[in-house]
Amino acid sequence: MRVHIIGTGLLGASLGLALSANGHEVTLEDTSPTAQQLAADLGAGRVVNAKTGTEAADTTDPDAPDTAPAHPDIVVVATPPDVAARVIATALETYPDATVTDVASVKTRLLESVKTLVTRSQLDRYIGCHPMAGREKSGAIAAQADLFTARPWVICSDEDTPESRLGEVIAMATDTGASVLHLDPRIHDAAVAKVSHVPQIVSSLVASQLRHAPLEEIALAGQGLRDVTRIAASDPGLWTQILTGNAEEVRSVLIDLRTELDEVIAALELGPGSTGLLAKAIALGNEGHDRIPGKHGQPPTTYAVVTILVPDTPGTLARLFKDIGDLGVNVEDFRMDHASGRKLGMVDVSVVPAIQQELEIGLLSKGWQIPESAIEKEGTA
Amino acid sequence: MRVHIIGTGLLGASLGLALSANGHEVTLEDTSPTAQQLAADLGAGRVVNAKTGTEAADTTDPDAPDTAPAHPDIVVVATPPDVAARVIATALETYPDATVTDVASVKTRLLESVKTLVTRSQLDRYIGCHPMAGREKSGAIAAQADLFTARPWVICSDEDTPESRLGEVIAMATDTGASVLHLDPRIHDAAVAKVSHVPQIVSSLVASQLRHAPLEEIALAGQGLRDVTRIAASDPGLWTQILTGNAEEVRSVLIDLRTELDEVIAALELGPGSTGLLAKAIALGNEGHDRIPGKHGQPPTTYAVVTILVPDTPGTLARLFKDIGDLGVNVEDFRMDHASGRKLGMVDVSVVPAIQQELEIGLLSKGWQIPESAIEKEGTA
Repeated sequence: MRVHIIGTGLLGASLGLALSANGHEVTLEDTSPTAQQLAADLGAGRVVNAKTGTEAADTTDPDAPDTAPAHPDIVVVATPPDVAARVIATALETYPDATVTDVASVKTRLLESVKTLVTRSQLDRYIGCHPMAGREKSGAIAAQADLFTARPWVICSDEDTPESRLGEVIAMATDTGASVLHLDPRIHDAAVAKVSHVPQIVSSLVASQLRHAPLEEIALAGQGLRDVTRIAASDPGLWTQILTGNAEEVRSVLIDLRTELDEVIAALELGPGSTGLLAKAIALGNEGHDRIPGKHGQPPTTYAVVTILVPDTPGTLARLFKDIGDLGVNVEDFRMDHASGRKLGMVDVSVVPAIQQELEIGLLSKGWQIPESAIEKEGTA
Repeated sequence: MRVHIIGTGLLGASLGLALSANGHEVTLEDTSPTAQQLAADLGAGRVVNAKTGTEAADTTDPDAPDTAPAHPDIVVVATPPDVAARVIATALETYPDATVTDVASVKTRLLESVKTLVTRSQLDRYIGCHPMAGREKSGAIAAQADLFTARPWVICSDEDTPESRLGEVIAMATDTGASVLHLDPRIHDAAVAKVSHVPQIVSSLVASQLRHAPLEEIALAGQGLRDVTRIAASDPGLWTQILTGNAEEVRSVLIDLRTELDEVIAALELGPGSTGLLAKAIALGNEGHDRIPGKHGQPPTTYAVVTILVPDTPGTLARLFKDIGDLGVNVEDFRMDHASGRKLGMVDVSVVPAIQQELEIGLLSKGWQIPESAIEKEGTA
């Protein structure tokens, strides 16, 4: 496919890298000549002059043939969200045969804005998307060909979207290694408020409390703090646009969160009588945490995890899995902990809860060690 | 040294693994026979009968010689925090020559409780500690010999602490690979409120908002949410004890955080006029984030980062660092991004801000590519 990418920041340049690597013909365009040239130098595609479709004058290789496609199959708008609607409308006008899509992280307001700018037939060629990928660093310099691998790529099509155009966008998204999901724009926006926008705000608020802490206090920072505040390094300009674009949904979740925060603050004031309230707050967090799907986007089925102690000797794992197989048990997931300095390894085997007991009894009868205290529930990892 | 560890959960068992690996003679004791045996099986030390100092009857090896030390040099109390004071007092009584320390994560209240239970001369043998290490999993089963490696190990001694006893505790902590820090208990508690306890509560609150979200919404979860909520999987029982023990400090930080949260909620209600307020909230988070030291506990000096584009050819890095050396520039840190699917690599070189410009001019004159947009400030990583 011929794909034209408008906006060569982190997402645009990463998309160019991923599609180029898969043999697609990618052209690039950015309002910043430096940014588009950087993306091209990194291998994200060729810079073209958008107006004429001819190779841009400032390309690195003056001898390159003028093969820029005047008729891209797909135009991807990867600009900052506050100009996305206008750029989408212009692209629908400039490329009258192309399918136009975007990567903006808020969909309802953007669709409303696009509707006010384009004709009904142009609108049929627009398919809003949101690849759920990013880094705390921005710009083409941070681009990665595998940025979208195994990440959700949300497509907000509707019943009026022509099948052939939808198929093109699905094919492009799939070629980046992403997992395609279809969602209504409103459901998408409610979802990202919870899984992305509120976590961003809260991460920033936690980091903000460190501004005036003495350095000897901050020196105690551990992995927990680093994880919670990693995204607090994000760009204020971009996030202001995202939060403004999804203000209602974000505000609604933050108000719920504040209610629970108030309960914790009140419990801490109560003193010894507060343990039940504090335990509840942490337990509710456990409950929400357990619903988060694994890295590769599996459904958040709660599997039972059976932990088996295994001696660190050759052939042990093979023997373990043969024994599990002989019991007729289907292993959903497993993980081996190669902790250093221990005489014994530990294998976590995830199975559907209904057969946990059967598996444990079977393995114990075959002489395997299953420390009782290790039986726990968790989502697949 | 002979080290006796009381409490063989995650911290106690990990400590036993680390010290055993370093040739120390480690004995273990836990109210749960299963837990202490598991820790011993993993290689954390030998189980002994605390009362007599003799080898416990239920040890794995019935032929093991009875070499349990009746006189440990150090006793480490690694029990849950709510029983730590009582166990410390008992240990001071049971082992009249030993230095007694602990690993509890709140120090002021614990010290006050210990003071009410022991004599003045016993108190001189107690040195409160807090190794800042942990995992979201608990129990000996999750123990790791390298749990303390490069982690801060806070020692709360005072002017009455005998030098020799302090030296023993420092030696033990250092042998786990931890970095020793000396702090007043009150400063420690204020610090952990900000860098550990508040992040825990907030992580739990964010995860809690996912409890009733439809699965199709949660399917959009990305790395940001996973990072922010990783510690939301923590144990409610343990955390209730920790938060109750440090209630005042935690409450004070949460109230500051709530004030900023209220500002964000108000800004989201304002609509378009709110961009400045939202940008400020994210920017304050950037500011706090920049103060967090690197993984290995370096001071959070803000270095200037110069990003150089390098072709992926042999000898390039050697040539780059020769050129930097020829410029007389001292490199504080560097990082290479091996992103797949790109024609060019990217090297981040951290230097003191004062020489950033000099380095850039020097490298540009030697023909290196430094994309202007990539110049950024960040803490060392």
